[in-house]
Parts: sequence; C-alpha cells; structure tokens
Amino acid sequence: MTSGQHPDGVRITGHTIRDIRFPTSDELHGSDAMNNDPDYSCAYITLLTDRPELTGHGLVFTIGRGNEICCAALESIADAVIGRTLSSITDDFAAFSRELTGDAQMRWLGPEKGVVHMAAGALINAVWDLYARLARKPLWLLLSELSPEELVRCVDFNYLTDALTPDEALKLLESMTPGRKERIEQLRNNGFPGYTTSAGWLGYSDERIRTLCREAVTQGWTHLKMKVGVSLEDDCRRAAIIREEIGPDRFLMMDANQAWDVDEAIDNMRVLADFDPHWIEEPTSPDDVLGHAAIARAIKPIRVASGEHCQNRIIFKQLMSIGAIDVCQIDSCRVAGVNENLAILLLARKFDIPVCPHAGGVGLCEQVQHLAMFDYIALSGTTDGRLIEYVDHLHEHFTDPVRIRQGHYLAPSRPGYSIEMKPESLATYEFPDGPVWKQRLARTA
Amino acid sequence: MTSGQHPDGVRITGHTIRDIRFPTSDELHGSDAMNNDPDYSCAYITLLTDRPELTGHGLVFTIGRGNEICCAALESIADAVIGRTLSSITDDFAAFSRELTGDAQMRWLGPEKGVVHMAAGALINAVWDLYARLARKPLWLLLSELSPEELVRCVDFNYLTDALTPDEALKLLESMTPGRKERIEQLRNNGFPGYTTSAGWLGYSDERIRTLCREAVTQGWTHLKMKVGVSLEDDCRRAAIIREEIGPDRFLMMDANQAWDVDEAIDNMRVLADFDPHWIEEPTSPDDVLGHAAIARAIKPIRVASGEHCQNRIIFKQLMSIGAIDVCQIDSCRVAGVNENLAILLLARKFDIPVCPHAGGVGLCEQVQHLAMFDYIALSGTTDGRLIEYVDHLHEHFTDPVRIRQGHYLAPSRPGYSIEMKPESLATYEFPDGPVWKQRLARTA
Repeated sequence: MTSGQHPDGVRITGHTIRDIRFPTSDELHGSDAMNNDPDYSCAYITLLTDRPELTGHGLVFTIGRGNEICCAALESIADAVIGRTLSSITDDFAAFSRELTGDAQMRWLGPEKGVVHMAAGALINAVWDLYARLARKPLWLLLSELSPEELVRCVDFNYLTDALTPDEALKLLESMTPGRKERIEQLRNNGFPGYTTSAGWLGYSDERIRTLCREAVTQGWTHLKMKVGVSLEDDCRRAAIIREEIGPDRFLMMDANQAWDVDEAIDNMRVLADFDPHWIEEPTSPDDVLGHAAIARAIKPIRVASGEHCQNRIIFKQLMSIGAIDVCQIDSCRVAGVNENLAILLLARKFDIPVCPHAGGVGLCEQVQHLAMFDYIALSGTTDGRLIEYVDHLHEHFTDPVRIRQGHYLAPSRPGYSIEMKPESLATYEFPDGPVWKQRLARTA
Repeated sequence: MTSGQHPDGVRITGHTIRDIRFPTSDELHGSDAMNNDPDYSCAYITLLTDRPELTGHGLVFTIGRGNEICCAALESIADAVIGRTLSSITDDFAAFSRELTGDAQMRWLGPEKGVVHMAAGALINAVWDLYARLARKPLWLLLSELSPEELVRCVDFNYLTDALTPDEALKLLESMTPGRKERIEQLRNNGFPGYTTSAGWLGYSDERIRTLCREAVTQGWTHLKMKVGVSLEDDCRRAAIIREEIGPDRFLMMDANQAWDVDEAIDNMRVLADFDPHWIEEPTSPDDVLGHAAIARAIKPIRVASGEHCQNRIIFKQLMSIGAIDVCQIDSCRVAGVNENLAILLLARKFDIPVCPHAGGVGLCEQVQHLAMFDYIALSGTTDGRLIEYVDHLHEHFTDPVRIRQGHYLAPSRPGYSIEMKPESLATYEFPDGPVWKQRLARTA
C-alpha cells in the first residue's frame, strides 16, 4: 500500500445480496444470434465493514432467468469473508482465491466454471473494490502501483505452469516496470481506445442501424461491431449498410455469439470477408479450443476473438498457446475476479495477444476499463490493437459511470472498481419486489 | 415403443426437489487428492404424473456443500415439464434437451456447464426414468430397442458436426444393428465387467488397503483402482502394497483427481510406471484438452483416462479427436443426461475409444451401468477393454441397487433408470431437517 490506509484496520462484518434485473428485452437492446430477449441483470453483493462508510461491491452479470441461482450461490459462499480483516485476504490474495475456487466440496460443482465460479468472481471483485476504496485509488491505479512481486502473489498458477511459471510472470512484469509512470500520465491525458456495439444489435431495423452508425461516426468512433449469425443473407445486408455508413477506413467487427458449428463458421466468414471484418468474435462454442484453432487457420487474415464466455484461465491458456485466438476478450464477471484476470493478462502478454475486453451488460464497461488500463501500464505498454468494448446502456445506474470522449474511455479517478450501483436503482429494479417488477408481474398475472 | 404403454397417455403434473446428504466424511470414504472430506450428496427430483403410481427420478450428485445451489437450479428449471405429456418430450427428445440447455437466458450461466447443466441433466434423466418405467423396461433395454433413427433424434449435434454428423451417427448405429439380440442375451447371461475403487481411497491406512485388496481378489475383481496425487512417496508405497497383493496379472489403475500440472503429471507417471499402471485418470484439469494430449504423448503406453468432470460433449469431442484420452469415462450426472451421453457414446465409437464409465458417489453405479450396457449392445459390440467403475457405498438406499457377481455388473431387470431412492432414506438424510442432520447439527451448534 503506497497511500491510503492499511487494510489491517478493517474487518468485514457482513454482506447483502440482491437480485437486480432490468427489463431490457422491451427494446431488444442486447439482442444477438444466441440471446434474443435478454433482461440484463445481476446478482449484486455489498460487503459491509466495521467502518460504516466503507463498503465493497461486486456483481455477477446475467441476462435474466437464473439470476436467482447466482444469488443462491453468493449466499452459499459469501460467509467465508465475514469476520476477516481485509489484510488477511490481501496479504495472500492467491490463497484466498484458491480457498474459494478450490474448496473441495464446492469445486465439484465446476470445477472453476459456471454459476459457482462466477459467484466467486463477484465476491473477489467486491474485496478488490473495498481494497481500492480504502487505498483511495481507482483499481487500475492500485494495481499499477503494486510491485511485480505483489502482483505475482495475487495469481493462482495451478494448471498454468506448462505455459507460464511464477518466475516468468515476474520477469514479464519487471521488464515493463520502467515507463509505468509515464504511461499513467499518458492514460490520464488520452484515455484508452474503445469501440461501440450500440449500432449492431440483431433486433434493430435497417433504418435504426443506419441512424446509429451515423451517430457513432459523429461521436468519433473508429471501430464498430455488428452481430451476425442468424441468417447469412441478413448479415450481408446489414454489413453492407454499416460499411456504406462508416466507409472503408473505419473498422467493422463481427460477433456471432457462438451461433455456428466449426465448418459453418469457416464457410460463412468466407462470404462475410467481402465486408472486410476486423475480427469475428465467438464464431462457435467457447469450449471448442480446437474448433477456434481450425477457424483461425482457415479464415486468416480475419482475426478470431473470444473470451467473454471462457470459463477460466485454463481455457485461455489453451486458446492462446495453440493460436486459436488473435484477440483476447477478458470479462470481469465470468472468471474468478481480478485475480484470475491477472493470470489471463499475463498469459496474453506471454503469447503476445492483444487484450480487448468484453463489456456492455450491467457494469461490465465500468469494471473492465480498469483491467485494460492496468494491462497497458504494467504489461503490454501499448494501446495499439487494444480496444475496450462500449455499449451505451444502463450506465446511469452506477455511482461512478464510465466517461467516453471521442471513442476513448477516460481513466476513472474515483476510488474503487466502479461497480457500485445507486441505492435508488437497486431499490427500483430489485426482483421480484422492486416497483418496476411488481408492476410488470401484476400486469401479466 | 415396442411394448408397454404409449407416452401419449401420461402427463407430468408436478415435481418434488429434495436436498439429500450422507455424512460420508466420517469414514473418509471417497477421499482422494482433491476431495479430502466428501459428504456424498444429491439434489433429488421426483416427477409426478397423472397416474399416482407412475413417477420419474433424477439426481445431481455432489459431495456436500453447494448441494443447495443444485436444488435451487432444479427449482428454476423444472417447471418446464409441468403440464406436458411425456410424448411431447420423447417424440423430439433433442428439441427438449435443447430447450433446457439452450434457453437463451439460462444459457448465459454456462453455457452448457456447471450447476445449471447438471440440473438439466437430472431433469432429463428423470424423464428417461419415467419413460422406461412406462415402457416397463430397464433403460438399457429401452435404448437398445430404439431404432437408429430414433436414437439419432435424441441427440443435439450442435457443435459436433465437424467431428460427427447425424448421417454418420446413423450409419454407425445401423452397422451395429445386426447382433443386437444376441448381445442382449449375452449380457443377461454374463453381465458387464467392472472394476473396484473400494480399496484405494487416500484416507485409508496401509493395513486397511491390504485387507481390502485381499477381499477384492477373493470377490473376483481383476481390475483395481487406487487414488494418487498428494505425495509421490506415499503413492509409491501404497502402489507397492497393492501390486504385492494383487500380483502382476491383475490390473492396477491410478486416479490423480486433477492434482497435477501437466509437466508434474508426466514426471510423476514416469516414476509410477514402475507399478505397471493400466491407466492414469484425471492427471490434470479436466478443462485442459491440450494438456491431456501432451501427457498422453509423453507417457505412452500408459493410458490416459478422463471424463467424470468433463462438462459436455464439446470437451469430449476435442479430447477424442486429438488423442488426448485413451479411455472415455462418461458420468451420468455431469452432462445433460442420457441424451448428451448418447452423443458422447457416438463420438467414442467414431474415434474407437473404449467407454469405462465413472461411478461411485450416490447412485452413479446404478445409472451408468445402463449406458455401458447400451453401448455394448448398440455401438461397440464388445466388452473388451470396457469396465464400469464400482464402489460399494450407499447402494442400500436405492430401490433397485446394482448387483455384482465375480467382478461383473448384472443387467438390471426392473423398469427404469435405477435412480429411485427409498422413501425412508430420503426422509432420514434430508438436509438440514432429516433426523441424521438434525442430530449432527444440534451437536455442533
């Protein structure tokens, strides 16, 4: 800890867990080849401490039904932190992470995947939020000021050592220590490049797509993403509209949201190649490491991107080591929190693969910006080929929402991991008893 | 349906879901390198129908904590079957399976992995149990009398077609149709070979291991499995004892329960090779397809076995297509039920890999025997190199427990999937309100 207060003095005394849902399916925001009617939701946890003003926040992002299962999982695991001092966790953060993900009985339910792993991620992120608030720093800065040794101590290297050892990780971090300060300064001045997905949802009309593309260009976006995967004919028509609107020099990314089998992905991307896609995202199942590798080989030079549904560091290790992805899309709420994302960022550095975080949803933009900024400062040293996804929904519910200028994320300046939602939003959208849901459920009853 | 009654006439009217736990950690039954104190448990579902005497049973096997999350997941998904006729499911079983595993909102929580996928498996298995009871056949026989077309219609080929198409699957099944009747007869006469894990738990003393080995040999077992992975020195000592007791001609399998990193697995198996292991099971993370492939290449001719923690057919597809496993260990409660296991059996046939199901736990032996027997009759046509795991715990709680003779599973003859637990066992071991738990919790309170 280089400033702020020492975590010794803080004890976690309790938690609240809430089921929060937004009825986004009304407007077909977030509609894609796999998810036609998402109600963006989250299982939201607040850690309470022996200081009334000091809390930590974390969430599991889901798209509606099943959010209650994530709440149940949080209820099952969150007592593990009650009564502990913050320093008893942060002094050996990898051990804490292993305690949650490696508990022999709970591990059976994964291992390290699915609902229980996502709940562990939310709890771990809430501890980081608390830690950064106590340190009075935004998370990206807290991480960027930890020493290489401290960072390596946060990482669980189980199942990674054939690709990356703690020693190698230390050397990678040490090699990038010079220049950290300058990059922090540059980041504060320039922000971090982003791309927008707001124009490309499947449920939007052609006219709406056209209007949104024009708005995006006016706002300064140079990279836009569209959803594909339900109908190749429709995809071509929509790609043509977007390409026409953004011109040949801006970048168009495509996202199939796992809609295709392997051979289908290869065939379809050979057709969609006409529209010069910068990458194809989630062309098939996120579990199919070899399938992604086959697709990547077949459609070069179109890049393959994946990660938002990759369950843990072991999948990322394989995708990267075999050349199955050209773009690594970390997600703040899928894996076991900041710590497992540190492992994934280290792997990406080792295999020289640019990190372009997945965002959107509920609070994902708010969170992943911190990880991308840390990656720039302490690992990659560059923003070339790096982009954070941006979707312009639901930010108004957060106390420290992202700030975008000319297609760039501005560096957060407030302490924490930017996960905290406004009390009035929590109250309004709580499921099923908040006023928004009470009304809706009464109407359909 | 070749006999029994048509599922048209039956409607599912409700369900009960119960949290059942056995305090097995008292005796260190089931202790291995990863699971040192399992309380074998299950989330148990009973489907009720409009015929009072006709029910269907399914379960998610867990090892204790977290069982309540599986119950919550079952509560969230099981209403999908209420009000439906059985035939509306069985007429297009793959569609029903996709409805459960592909529901856009629930799918986010996996996809197709972890708690939600396991719950889907339990629900699907309960429908099969019901179906087989109505047909008045044990499940293995019901499956073995379905036509190749009917079997292919049960399978979700999503993400499989680069390795196996529905046409190929049909041809594989058709090629094995001749001889089905003879194999059914042979199975009824001879049973299906098994192996025992009862002697090899990590928590047992050397003397207990020795005694159990002698008992196993006396009972006619020719294949025994031991747990390894906590200490190489201990593993060597215990392997020496077992080898001494069983002699050079019986088979000794080893199971590391994911304890090792890739290079560690290779190094350790080069040492343990002295004891002539028949296979090494779960040498590393079940997610590490490439890691298993590296281990398999390095330790030939020792076989690599995996599957009990493999989340779905997509992982099996990769493990088999790349030669990462020599033995395919299906599990009845990890994937999406009988239907996804049919996909995995078809893949195993395609890649010519013997299927040796994982069992033990709560009711796993009872269930997987049906799948192995179907595999023999309709797909592999042989029992050479095939074995069903056997562990002699908790069978007394089932209404149709496995029957073992001279190291062989006898073919079940009662209708259903053999999942049903006795009402008195359910009442006694329900958590936390059954008498066994009430007493224990009162004692520790």
